[in-house]
Amino acid sequence: MYDRIKGFRDFYPAEMQARRQVFDDVEDTVRAYGFREIDTPTLEPAEMYIDKSGEEIVEELYSFEDQGGRHVALTPELTPTVARMVVAKQQELSKPIKWFSTRPFWRYEEPQQGRFREFYQTNVDIFGSSEPDADAEILAVAGDMLTNLGLDQSDFEFRVSHRDILGGLLETFDGDIDVREAIRAVDKSAKVEQAEYHDLLVGAGLSYEQAERFDELLDVDEANLDELIEFAGTERIEDAVTNLQNVLDAAEDFGVREHCTLSLETARGLDYYTGVVFECFDSTGEVSRAVFGGGRYDDLIESFGGQPTPAVGFAPGDATLSLLLQRAGVWPEEALSTDYYVLQVGDTRDVAARIARDLRASGNVVETDVADRSFGAQMNYADSINAETVVIAGERDLENGEVTVKDMESGDQTTAPVDAFPGEHDRPTYDDFA
Amino acid sequence: MYDRIKGFRDFYPAEMQARRQVFDDVEDTVRAYGFREIDTPTLEPAEMYIDKSGEEIVEELYSFEDQGGRHVALTPELTPTVARMVVAKQQELSKPIKWFSTRPFWRYEEPQQGRFREFYQTNVDIFGSSEPDADAEILAVAGDMLTNLGLDQSDFEFRVSHRDILGGLLETFDGDIDVREAIRAVDKSAKVEQAEYHDLLVGAGLSYEQAERFDELLDVDEANLDELIEFAGTERIEDAVTNLQNVLDAAEDFGVREHCTLSLETARGLDYYTGVVFECFDSTGEVSRAVFGGGRYDDLIESFGGQPTPAVGFAPGDATLSLLLQRAGVWPEEALSTDYYVLQVGDTRDVAARIARDLRASGNVVETDVADRSFGAQMNYADSINAETVVIAGERDLENGEVTVKDMESGDQTTAPVDAFPGEHDRPTYDDFA
Repeated sequence: MYDRIKGFRDFYPAEMQARRQVFDDVEDTVRAYGFREIDTPTLEPAEMYIDKSGEEIVEELYSFEDQGGRHVALTPELTPTVARMVVAKQQELSKPIKWFSTRPFWRYEEPQQGRFREFYQTNVDIFGSSEPDADAEILAVAGDMLTNLGLDQSDFEFRVSHRDILGGLLETFDGDIDVREAIRAVDKSAKVEQAEYHDLLVGAGLSYEQAERFDELLDVDEANLDELIEFAGTERIEDAVTNLQNVLDAAEDFGVREHCTLSLETARGLDYYTGVVFECFDSTGEVSRAVFGGGRYDDLIESFGGQPTPAVGFAPGDATLSLLLQRAGVWPEEALSTDYYVLQVGDTRDVAARIARDLRASGNVVETDVADRSFGAQMNYADSINAETVVIAGERDLENGEVTVKDMESGDQTTAPVDAFPGEHDRPTYDDFA
Repeated sequence: MYDRIKGFRDFYPAEMQARRQVFDDVEDTVRAYGFREIDTPTLEPAEMYIDKSGEEIVEELYSFEDQGGRHVALTPELTPTVARMVVAKQQELSKPIKWFSTRPFWRYEEPQQGRFREFYQTNVDIFGSSEPDADAEILAVAGDMLTNLGLDQSDFEFRVSHRDILGGLLETFDGDIDVREAIRAVDKSAKVEQAEYHDLLVGAGLSYEQAERFDELLDVDEANLDELIEFAGTERIEDAVTNLQNVLDAAEDFGVREHCTLSLETARGLDYYTGVVFECFDSTGEVSRAVFGGGRYDDLIESFGGQPTPAVGFAPGDATLSLLLQRAGVWPEEALSTDYYVLQVGDTRDVAARIARDLRASGNVVETDVADRSFGAQMNYADSINAETVVIAGERDLENGEVTVKDMESGDQTTAPVDAFPGEHDRPTYDDFA
């Protein structure tokens, strides 16, 4: 009668249980590093994105005028919001500020595999440190997150680049070059043919020769990064190369170096990045797009009216992350789990409800009949929710002061004294009474 | 530079930590009853609410036309969405369907204490049982939720009513009565003077005499519910009274009867309720509005094009629930907690990072320096995040193969062999090495 809106998703319990486990694992990793949860509005002033986010996001913005005449937008990304929040309490917050949050975002894109109009991201950011250690900690928490989800080193790689190397190289070329436009071309380089990539660079103001030279330079080996300094001869490139090397050294100490490969062709789509940027890729290439990315954005807080505050972060999204976990065979099982079903036969609701309450009090997931169903219907239901143990409160058993305890996997059953169930047991099983 | 939008909220870490604990406690209770988490879209067709939710919600709807010309709305409530989802998979889902989810909703209301334009609700519903046991389980999980949050019986009460008693009594009066309108008047009765309440009833088609009589009837004692049957003499009233009594009997077995009081003046604002409805109130009256409410809505699924499917549910919201918890003094402390800060003195990053990794691997929250700060600045920061233990990795200590372990509450400190830290200890403290 009413249809779900295109690009939006309904999550039913079995799939949601798997998603919840992944969200929890991600957040447990992030919390272990001392990132603190925040929560943020769904609507923000549309101008915030028009001013800050770059044209790609603005084209895809869900924006409208609210009943009070405000031009508002459904948040397409978190960074402008956290920048606003940092600026609002800059004096009170002790630095570095380490925040995370998991929530949905919205972009009016064409839905496809791994892309929806409503998607979830866990945003993880450090504000207030320009040190390479902060970049490395972001790489480390990202790497730990993936290994804690069950991936191993051969499953993924972080392609690490540096915006200032890209920008610094571009400014060495003669001509009227639109650096933002050229960096956006780099961001697309992996997705298009080389000729088209060069055309995009030419569109940004490079000559074809410059485009080819630039392309070659970005192909440099990690061992030969100094060649870029020699080529450019500028302090900017020297600083950027040194910074990149320092981040990789810190990544070594932080235990994440093994996941990192140099890849100057990686640029990230958003305009506000300033230093190290990285993208996570499926090593097998089966998931062809970047799984997620992140990087340093040192100028954003100041551009929001705050004091200069360096920042670095990353943001895994649910749709691509699930593709990678599925590809690697570590996506959690999509199935319900239930500790007990307390089955009622005859007028035994008072006993069944008491047993259910006691079992819940020790932390178990327990259902009992709320629909006045037959023995068979209740047993089928218990099976459908994967109940491990069924406790049968039957009128006749109860006359003898007993309930029946049935192990659903083996099918074995035995009786237990109703007064001792669960008694001292936090998690009584068939074996406790057989 | 950019302002947060009116009626929306930013949650910083300390407050968020308290909110997270409350959300987790609520969800733990609900999961223990076998309710399964679902997740749902933020946008739905606006028509869904215009058709189903009643005029009050529609007036407050955030709706707009998306880039594809769809008339969409930010969901003001969950029930129409879950009805849509039940209908979409009606054949596959084993009954009863027990679902929950926690997420934000949006209504363009005037912000005031306990009311925001963006608010969070945990929706909890059972589909597929018309039995009083299902109503009672909803009351029971609501009651358990509040006691698990630290409230006791004297803190709150559930005012229980029945829509069919209200509707059944109204239809016994002569005249052209708008039953929906009259029930909305009942919903407002506690918030306005008696004279205004009677005026509202008259506006719904009752005479002043009928309004007074109706008001008297709703004041009936629990022991005298049979008087309503006598007065009305209709099967509808008889069935409704019996159903209400059966729900209260089941509530006794489910351990929640003590929280319930009969209150026929309770009606709930939404149009789609059909049977038992209830609202939770602060017993002290300090929080003057209903904390949350719920009830039975047996016709909604069918009205969405599904097979007739009885339903009952409730939905606590964050804003009023926090007022009640604060009033009762059981709102969690708004403070950060941190297990370890690993302090670096000199060039000791590799050791500090290794210790931090090992401590995280056993489930601790651990921070280390990522901003190249002095000893004093790091110690102040460790204090600001309430670190329980500071582990000092100093160049000189390390020459002796040692780190310093400092208990932040007592200020006591001792040394520990770096190779044995954390070693076999999952959670090493000062006491382990003193």
